[in-house]
Amino acid sequence: MSGHVPPGFGVRDGALVIAGRTAEQWVAEAGDTPLFVYDRVRVAAKVSAFRAAFPGVRLHYAMKANPFAPLLAWMAGLVDGVDVASGGELAAAVAAGAREISFAGPAKRDAELAAAIEAGATINLESVGEMRRAAALAAGKGLRARVAVRVNPPFELKGSGMRMGGGAKPFGVDADAVPDMLRAMAGLPLDFRGFHIFAGSQNLDAGAIIAAQRETVALAAALAAQAPCPPALVNLGGGFGVPYFPGDVALDVGLVGAALAEALSARPAVLAETEFALELGRWLVADAGVYLTRVVDRKMSGGQLFLACDGGLHHQLAASGNFGTVIRRNYPLANATRFAAEPEEVANVVGCLCTPLDRLGDRVMLPRTEEGDLIALFMAGAYGRTASPGAFLGHPPPGEIFA
Amino acid sequence: MSGHVPPGFGVRDGALVIAGRTAEQWVAEAGDTPLFVYDRVRVAAKVSAFRAAFPGVRLHYAMKANPFAPLLAWMAGLVDGVDVASGGELAAAVAAGAREISFAGPAKRDAELAAAIEAGATINLESVGEMRRAAALAAGKGLRARVAVRVNPPFELKGSGMRMGGGAKPFGVDADAVPDMLRAMAGLPLDFRGFHIFAGSQNLDAGAIIAAQRETVALAAALAAQAPCPPALVNLGGGFGVPYFPGDVALDVGLVGAALAEALSARPAVLAETEFALELGRWLVADAGVYLTRVVDRKMSGGQLFLACDGGLHHQLAASGNFGTVIRRNYPLANATRFAAEPEEVANVVGCLCTPLDRLGDRVMLPRTEEGDLIALFMAGAYGRTASPGAFLGHPPPGEIFA
Repeated sequence: MSGHVPPGFGVRDGALVIAGRTAEQWVAEAGDTPLFVYDRVRVAAKVSAFRAAFPGVRLHYAMKANPFAPLLAWMAGLVDGVDVASGGELAAAVAAGAREISFAGPAKRDAELAAAIEAGATINLESVGEMRRAAALAAGKGLRARVAVRVNPPFELKGSGMRMGGGAKPFGVDADAVPDMLRAMAGLPLDFRGFHIFAGSQNLDAGAIIAAQRETVALAAALAAQAPCPPALVNLGGGFGVPYFPGDVALDVGLVGAALAEALSARPAVLAETEFALELGRWLVADAGVYLTRVVDRKMSGGQLFLACDGGLHHQLAASGNFGTVIRRNYPLANATRFAAEPEEVANVVGCLCTPLDRLGDRVMLPRTEEGDLIALFMAGAYGRTASPGAFLGHPPPGEIFA
Repeated sequence: MSGHVPPGFGVRDGALVIAGRTAEQWVAEAGDTPLFVYDRVRVAAKVSAFRAAFPGVRLHYAMKANPFAPLLAWMAGLVDGVDVASGGELAAAVAAGAREISFAGPAKRDAELAAAIEAGATINLESVGEMRRAAALAAGKGLRARVAVRVNPPFELKGSGMRMGGGAKPFGVDADAVPDMLRAMAGLPLDFRGFHIFAGSQNLDAGAIIAAQRETVALAAALAAQAPCPPALVNLGGGFGVPYFPGDVALDVGLVGAALAEALSARPAVLAETEFALELGRWLVADAGVYLTRVVDRKMSGGQLFLACDGGLHHQLAASGNFGTVIRRNYPLANATRFAAEPEEVANVVGCLCTPLDRLGDRVMLPRTEEGDLIALFMAGAYGRTASPGAFLGHPPPGEIFA
């Protein structure tokens, strides 16, 4: 195996075991490769870890990380809310039976706002203009819209994979413009629910997350003082990273939970009745997913070994290094057929697309790997299938199993 | 407008005209935004320019650049062959009525090879292992397979956007291993058709392309001397770039064509009866496509103007800077509603996805732009819809019109 294979996967007859079956058994059940297998037990373990670390804090699932319908329906029963980012995701969350839905996104169209109003979802308002459109649509329906204000905080989650706050940003309303917006909200057919403050994502530094959460609570308190009513809910965002690469250390959520509890216990009176939520996607599902792809061709070029597989960046854009990364690094990868075997050769694992971008593993150590072997790419539960150009080069869609 | 808007687009009542109609008229015909409009006249002009510059050279269309069925069917009637990269593309090319099909790709599965054999397509063999599999499949069917050897040349197309040759590569057979492979081909149920030698892509330097083509012809001649029969066809690859960015200058194909004619007229006797093909995708279709997306929200953040649109990187991954580029640069972009208006403000044009990666134009000069205006992203005819993560965040697919 190569890189940072997440712990907890088993071996039977030398082969990788996922959720009680070997990789080859899952492929037989799906009928073909490539295949995503998502292990519900691993997701449940993450939910439990969250509940233990954050008692009393609401857990929202950011379904953009993995919207596979069986997973979503099951997740909807475990979490306190589902965060959606489009009308399509809203419809999926409703179909999944989500109890509480909130909708964030920088260019919500009128049809999407109208659907959210009818579904009773909370609209995280991204601008004054969006507030006015939501109000007009609600008025036209004789309804009131549930809204929160998405705030672009004047700070960032330091060291994040993606910065969502601080400085000029497409997301939310600059914090200093929020009081005027809250005043303008009065008299509109809008039920103010609270704030959504998202400072960054994919962060493994507990100290940075703790600092950002403290600042977020303080900012929510300052803004709450100017709101039409106390906020029912403050969504503190997410930002919990997962370890993809050698040297990455899993986030210590116990530390973050303890610090957040302390910050919340000291919160000012204006937030006394407020509930708090964390919005997590990647952290909940990434390590539950394994992508299985079969070696179709084994060959040498320029003195290097190449293993060409039937999967590729059309399902694994981020792993190929082409989505939000500047320098490509290998995701954890192993020979699933010979999971227990000793590494003995260095291989370049490439996908089936006829483009040099389609790299799954550069110079990884593997056991002797034959055509027909299954390669497992780990950390494939988040931002895999839907975050990749699935139609590129006309290959069939991958299988997906929620095990 | 901003950046390098390709020449030849018109204006009517101040609005952008594509293929005789305003952007708003196309949107009305499609029913909604976002929308790709591909102008067949612009594609035809490219085909004509090719025919003028490369008399006697076959033109193949690399359909991965744009597989939209109406465009493909029309293109199949104009070009001499269609190059496919998967079983799915093969089926589409057959359905489009392509006269001559060749199939390249580093991990062709048995089912794909079998389909190619049945369709009479030429299989560009990527390895000795693939040759043996193709031969076994042909034998099993009582057929012969048409094959070419894809050669990994010992040189590269210098300055290419993507390097496809030179050094250790997943594509093709290292040139020095080709003679042994050609010998091993004897006695197998394979009809040797020739060579496929692809040294790079997206190159604007005529001198570099001329040098690579000369080396390619020389390499083909050296290898042909060891082939079971003279090659019927040598596919010289493509590599013709298109100008995306300010300062880019369109490739001078007249120069390339003259140099290739000279190289071919001086070719050795072993290639006397050989035909030559160029395989072009991006160069044929990129500038024929315009992506239209509507401004949904206009707002300020941190002193900067943001225009949030209903399109985004789920249709425009490369334009967002997340596909094969290290440093993001703006694709040419304009306000299609006010195409003739003077620029007067600096705006950040972003897509509707709730991710900071979704950038369509950073700090571009635009006329005063209102919600409801149409933004046109140019050079959208190649590697747009199918090369983007269309399912990401659950937005509906874009419209496509072959005008």
